[in-house]
Amino acid sequence: MSKKLTSRSEDYSKWYNEIVMKADLAENSGVRGMMVIKPYGYAIWEKMQSILDKMFKDTGHENAYFPLLIPKSYFSKEASHVDGFAKECAVVTHYRLKNDENGKGIVVDETAKLEEELIIRPTSETIIWDSYRKWIQSYRDLPLLINQWANVLRWEMRTRLFLRTAEFLWQEGHTAHATKGEAIIEAEKMQGVYATFAEKFMAMPVIKGTKSVNERFAGALETYTIEALMQDGKALQAGTSHFLGQNFAKAFDVKFTSKEGDLDYVWATSWGVSTRLMGALIMTHSDDHGLVLPPELAPIQVVIVPIYKSEEELTAVSAMAHEIMDELKNKDISVKFDDRTTQKPGWKFAEYELKGVPLRIVIGPRDLEKGTVELARRDNLTKTIIEKHTITETIIRTLDEIQESLFDKAHQFRNDHITEVNSFEEFKTVLEEKGGFLSAHWDGSAETEETIKNLTKATIRCIPLDTPSEEGICVFSGKRSKGRVLFAKAY
Amino acid sequence: MSKKLTSRSEDYSKWYNEIVMKADLAENSGVRGMMVIKPYGYAIWEKMQSILDKMFKDTGHENAYFPLLIPKSYFSKEASHVDGFAKECAVVTHYRLKNDENGKGIVVDETAKLEEELIIRPTSETIIWDSYRKWIQSYRDLPLLINQWANVLRWEMRTRLFLRTAEFLWQEGHTAHATKGEAIIEAEKMQGVYATFAEKFMAMPVIKGTKSVNERFAGALETYTIEALMQDGKALQAGTSHFLGQNFAKAFDVKFTSKEGDLDYVWATSWGVSTRLMGALIMTHSDDHGLVLPPELAPIQVVIVPIYKSEEELTAVSAMAHEIMDELKNKDISVKFDDRTTQKPGWKFAEYELKGVPLRIVIGPRDLEKGTVELARRDNLTKTIIEKHTITETIIRTLDEIQESLFDKAHQFRNDHITEVNSFEEFKTVLEEKGGFLSAHWDGSAETEETIKNLTKATIRCIPLDTPSEEGICVFSGKRSKGRVLFAKAY
Repeated sequence: MSKKLTSRSEDYSKWYNEIVMKADLAENSGVRGMMVIKPYGYAIWEKMQSILDKMFKDTGHENAYFPLLIPKSYFSKEASHVDGFAKECAVVTHYRLKNDENGKGIVVDETAKLEEELIIRPTSETIIWDSYRKWIQSYRDLPLLINQWANVLRWEMRTRLFLRTAEFLWQEGHTAHATKGEAIIEAEKMQGVYATFAEKFMAMPVIKGTKSVNERFAGALETYTIEALMQDGKALQAGTSHFLGQNFAKAFDVKFTSKEGDLDYVWATSWGVSTRLMGALIMTHSDDHGLVLPPELAPIQVVIVPIYKSEEELTAVSAMAHEIMDELKNKDISVKFDDRTTQKPGWKFAEYELKGVPLRIVIGPRDLEKGTVELARRDNLTKTIIEKHTITETIIRTLDEIQESLFDKAHQFRNDHITEVNSFEEFKTVLEEKGGFLSAHWDGSAETEETIKNLTKATIRCIPLDTPSEEGICVFSGKRSKGRVLFAKAY
Repeated sequence: MSKKLTSRSEDYSKWYNEIVMKADLAENSGVRGMMVIKPYGYAIWEKMQSILDKMFKDTGHENAYFPLLIPKSYFSKEASHVDGFAKECAVVTHYRLKNDENGKGIVVDETAKLEEELIIRPTSETIIWDSYRKWIQSYRDLPLLINQWANVLRWEMRTRLFLRTAEFLWQEGHTAHATKGEAIIEAEKMQGVYATFAEKFMAMPVIKGTKSVNERFAGALETYTIEALMQDGKALQAGTSHFLGQNFAKAFDVKFTSKEGDLDYVWATSWGVSTRLMGALIMTHSDDHGLVLPPELAPIQVVIVPIYKSEEELTAVSAMAHEIMDELKNKDISVKFDDRTTQKPGWKFAEYELKGVPLRIVIGPRDLEKGTVELARRDNLTKTIIEKHTITETIIRTLDEIQESLFDKAHQFRNDHITEVNSFEEFKTVLEEKGGFLSAHWDGSAETEETIKNLTKATIRCIPLDTPSEEGICVFSGKRSKGRVLFAKAY
């Protein structure tokens, strides 16, 4: 497989697909809309999982596991919820196969038909709240702070690796609280956790905001979101946290006795991020040479490539490489020494560029003489010669610099792509010519939002949390608006 | 819920179910045969996962993720494999629900019927080998050493929490090799990893062996197993590793070019352990007071319970508790201080006994004066008074002692329950009166094995790896035998 990529300017979408395939992150399977996450891609996801899991536990959450299959009747109990998901549900109807009597091979055994169909979870509110009814009696049982790492399935018509797949991996937090206020604080807190994760570890700046009614999660009273901007000027919803009010408690009859002895329904939140973050990570930093990974999420942070002409030279270079490896490993830096003899150095350089390894050390015979090595940065493709005895400190410092620099670059790009627009003409022009977020006045009606979407494909990404109260005129309807919201085309 | 358990001697099966429920490990869900793993149970599983995952990575394996759903046609490609699993497959036939026109609520949308049914994976050989065809061309691509953490589903008719559930969590390793020898070495190596995990971390002694042809995994040429013994004298298969020969490579046409340029099918293994291990862990060590956990897998290793009569006393006791906590946490010991005022000390003692916390520290006002604390061991229910300044070293030592002592006790029990039997009368008597493993000569025929199973419910658990070659007479048929095998009733 050629290591050369289509450039972003030529065909952004093709560039994305090629990176995913050529960097060995994922590929399509033989099952419609379902991907195989390959080991290198999965290693990045594992790093994300482990950091997020610690953040959830540090904020008091515990993990649990609920069934994959949900009875259709559960699913129907919360009206707006079922409306939101019914059209994309995989349905299990039978529980046995058999050999066909007419020799047609293996067929479904019609005698093993389920009385009630089971749905593969598209999200787990209903099955979880059915358990919460048994777990919650008193204020002493609250708050209940639970997270689940799981696969979910939504039968999407158009799928793209990581960004939109029928099956995806995610975590879903589901919490129960004694008061409305506590539940809102929880939903906001988890939005904050997601924002911190995105910015600190993914080096991906995000805008925190709330969703318009149209864009809310099915069953939520408020959806908090973090929105990122990709290099092609399209927005990507990177994580959401929902205040569910008492909707699920009422649907599943989950009541608790308060300290004062009153019986009331509990208040709920749910929140999730998924393997979609992999798509966001790829599109935020990568370039025409391949993947660019922030050091915090790179499965391999440093790769060492030896240059040699003889067996003797390889031995000497390897000795030095192993010394460096040991030093770096002691500092918890993940390092790989690629001493394969089946591939040439140039091939290896291209390979690790494609895979986004943040730093490359090259050691050749001359370096042995001089006590130096060559250090190459993946993010800006610069090379420097450094003295061997400074290597560990240089690498630690440089990894930090790369992490910061990737964030700064993405932040600059994002900020350069928030444009205030004050007429619908301007809205359309900026959207087509520049893309990014359009900060525009909106009259607050679902109808206007829908019309703008139909005309331009731009949706309200969020009502930013830090929006100043500013009277204005809706960019489309001319009606009164109380503040600007952010529109964009989105993944 | 009462903390008192049914005793093992009274009703072992009821005792097991009560522990699982009362120690908050798991419960049945509203979906037939599917369990909810509660936070405390899941925390134990997470410890198992994290240790196993490290062991897999240390032996060169990488994680990846493959689709949940498998097209029926894939599933049918390996004949013995489909025979083994067809009868317990959940089948997805539709991908949409809709509102019924006749007001019957939400119904399956018959216009959204799949052309080819999809099976929820009962195991992933077929979907994985379909990918391996694309990943393997040359000997350079081998060995391919991949593991997946996933949920799988087998429609079991009789289910029991952890031991046999329709959906369960597991890991499945799937490897591909250039030679038969390498694949066999891999299968044996992973059996070794499982045995080490069981003995060192679960403190559960196991017998390593191979399965008889009857008991092999569907599609395997050899199944390696580790077999444990529960306190009721029944065996439990705790992990299996399969040498699959070229069966899946042939079914999915996975060939490679060797160093010599020859084209050949690759050789395969697969191996897995599941949440069934939770059942094994519970039944190996627990007693009539509740769960007993080996320190290596205990989510809470030490619990501190304060005794106090006044607010002042609580403050003083808490100060000491926090000092001890900090010291222990510094040594990576997981410790919980239960200073809830809503529950009395006696209630807490029973609670942590039920949950199997290995060590309990009790601090009261007298301890403050004397500079002592009370230390109680869960495994043997002994209490000692120790000086506060020796607490960390005492705890580290005692946790090690508990781990070892649990293994020794289980090992003693297991060894006491391997009985050599030399006639079928003896076989039946020992099986009924004592249980455990029966070491008996067998003529090697599937027919004899089947008949013994039908007559006694005992199956061949394994042909132990260390079986001495010993000529003898089959305990049932009187025919020639070349060595003893282990029979037992099993979970």
